[in-house]
Amino acid sequence: MALPFSDTSRHDNTLAVIRTLRDQGPVARVDLGALNGISSATVTSISAELLQQGLISERPPETPRPSGRGRPKTLIELDPQAACVVCVKLSINEIQLVVGDFAGQVRHSEHHVVPTLALSADAFETLLEEKISAVCDQQLVGFQRLAGICLAVQGVVSSQSGTIIWSPALSFRNAPISARLGERFHCSVLLENDANCIANVLAAQPKYANYPNLVVIMLGYGIGMSVLINGVPFLGANGSAAEFGHSKYQPDGALCACGRRGCVEAYASDYALYRAAADHLELPTGDSAHPSEQQMQALTQLALTGDPVTQRTYAEAGRALGYGIANVLALFNPDLVLITGSGVRGFDAMQTALHSAIDEALVVELKGTTRIESCAWDRDMTCMGGIAMALHATDGKTLLDSQTESVG
Amino acid sequence: MALPFSDTSRHDNTLAVIRTLRDQGPVARVDLGALNGISSATVTSISAELLQQGLISERPPETPRPSGRGRPKTLIELDPQAACVVCVKLSINEIQLVVGDFAGQVRHSEHHVVPTLALSADAFETLLEEKISAVCDQQLVGFQRLAGICLAVQGVVSSQSGTIIWSPALSFRNAPISARLGERFHCSVLLENDANCIANVLAAQPKYANYPNLVVIMLGYGIGMSVLINGVPFLGANGSAAEFGHSKYQPDGALCACGRRGCVEAYASDYALYRAAADHLELPTGDSAHPSEQQMQALTQLALTGDPVTQRTYAEAGRALGYGIANVLALFNPDLVLITGSGVRGFDAMQTALHSAIDEALVVELKGTTRIESCAWDRDMTCMGGIAMALHATDGKTLLDSQTESVG
Repeated sequence: MALPFSDTSRHDNTLAVIRTLRDQGPVARVDLGALNGISSATVTSISAELLQQGLISERPPETPRPSGRGRPKTLIELDPQAACVVCVKLSINEIQLVVGDFAGQVRHSEHHVVPTLALSADAFETLLEEKISAVCDQQLVGFQRLAGICLAVQGVVSSQSGTIIWSPALSFRNAPISARLGERFHCSVLLENDANCIANVLAAQPKYANYPNLVVIMLGYGIGMSVLINGVPFLGANGSAAEFGHSKYQPDGALCACGRRGCVEAYASDYALYRAAADHLELPTGDSAHPSEQQMQALTQLALTGDPVTQRTYAEAGRALGYGIANVLALFNPDLVLITGSGVRGFDAMQTALHSAIDEALVVELKGTTRIESCAWDRDMTCMGGIAMALHATDGKTLLDSQTESVG
Repeated sequence: MALPFSDTSRHDNTLAVIRTLRDQGPVARVDLGALNGISSATVTSISAELLQQGLISERPPETPRPSGRGRPKTLIELDPQAACVVCVKLSINEIQLVVGDFAGQVRHSEHHVVPTLALSADAFETLLEEKISAVCDQQLVGFQRLAGICLAVQGVVSSQSGTIIWSPALSFRNAPISARLGERFHCSVLLENDANCIANVLAAQPKYANYPNLVVIMLGYGIGMSVLINGVPFLGANGSAAEFGHSKYQPDGALCACGRRGCVEAYASDYALYRAAADHLELPTGDSAHPSEQQMQALTQLALTGDPVTQRTYAEAGRALGYGIANVLALFNPDLVLITGSGVRGFDAMQTALHSAIDEALVVELKGTTRIESCAWDRDMTCMGGIAMALHATDGKTLLDSQTESVG
């Protein structure tokens, strides 16, 4: 049932207060009101309720500076223990689990090397249950509730139905994972494409605040993309939008991990770069279809120090990326294209060819005013985004639960 | 200043009533209420006000059928004379002007052959002013007001700033046309890409109602596209989104009218088909860079009746279109791709290659559940859409003006 107007407004204001406290840290009541356009009477009433529910706490005023006038203000802040969320990031042969508290801070992180491609759907689900369960047992002591789980997955997912449609990390398809985990852990489960988690973190940074139409390209083993339209991830009809890695550079071109030919990924991903260079160079062997970070760093070093064969390989990758980005500019006309991911290590060796390719592909009117930038990669960004998105998705439920508890 | 809550709601309900009457024709008050979720008291009050303002009229009840029970209902309908809008469609060497009444019906249409490419920006603006002025003098007698003008343009436009950024019909660029026309005719001027006008008409058809993410591709002299996301045209950061014709099929490929190489348009547009076929066939000359409808029909006929050279030309066009559509599926994941425009005359000669190319380009998970269909072309669709969009954009103003007049 829909809430009556005044309750809806109170509810929205309360959520706004929680999110401001999460974004800004400790804030005085008067500033909370100003930041959210809420009267001070309403802020006082909301914060009294949140205090009673144990979702926020007061922080004693700091000693005023000698020059300060008036009484120092009491700050309020989220109680980090009020709830927690778990983000599970799935990539090829690795699972990362991160615990985030109610204030959005990472409290625990662990990596597991797992032969993900060898798992059956059932074994994968059982493994996730075990790992999440172990984290809950060991890391969730002291938290009042597990509000939700975010599953951040490389590949095509349907957030709506909670199904992993296709991931390069898994050999099976169409796995309805969210429902099973939700039942097991009695909480909501958010299934997200990993690039959308990263875009969420980047879009929250003040320096990107003026780019509402933001495209984030993730270079790495595969190539992912997130398209934010007015700040909201664009998912398409069934979640498979923004599959930039499988847009085409060259019909009948290089073989892609997806099985088709000519995808941008088949030129500019880690495995494609390594494969192209290995045709001409003596490279360390190992699993050359899944080159390690060390292997990729060694290869990048060759390109950056002037080895002509590797330079040509990276230039061809840059050209494929540039043509792919030209299509993104023609079709999405974004404010900003941000290139990141572990593969950004090789961006300096690609970018001249990348920019030339865009200029070659598009007249200036279609290139438009879009900025194209790279940004440093932090492997924890995915889970940071997953935690933020899981908290955002569960704030309403956490509020409802804590109201019921404080009344009961 | 924002209206207080109850006024906003009353205003929204009044607009909803106007739009229902436009979509459905004459409707009884009770049905108007049911269709819009408004109480019958509110409908009665709104319709009394609209009657007084001269925006609607009552239609005497029709004679009840012998089987009908109860009193026949009085129907209300929009007064078509309450306002009108003018849609001006600009294409290469042609300008079409259409007058639409307040009920959305076309009341007048005229075409002018004009050497658009030879005009300076100033001459173009003067010409538009003259043509619109003549239409106003001759065709707007009896209408209470000119509510707005819609300019439907082939090419890249910024609706927000009212600027034609780049059109294949014009040899100049960046023409801030809306402001000048608005001042001259004292009404609001909507600048739209022609494909968005067509998508607006198609999306309103009941058979496409269940496809909120709709891509419309227009084949013709050039190749245009409109992307509706939840029914709303997607414009991008500065209006140049959805430029499908200049997305790439083949780096270093065929020369495009834009000056770059390898665009989808350079293979599948009218001029590209005619150029490719003319390399091998004795075709009627004339302006082969701008083949006429007759020339294109003759060429299509050759392909459809089995001439192998022309068949290969259309198959290559179908393949380029297919690869282009594959990128659209990978990036937008729409519910439906509708192919129309005058060039759809040759669709039967392209579609086998088109579907093969999509299958060749994309794994089944990325092809997704998107339907790909063609739909018959009606050259008046652009102006129909322009009229609908201009009325929709000006209903609020028309309402306000008529309130002021009926009070004053």
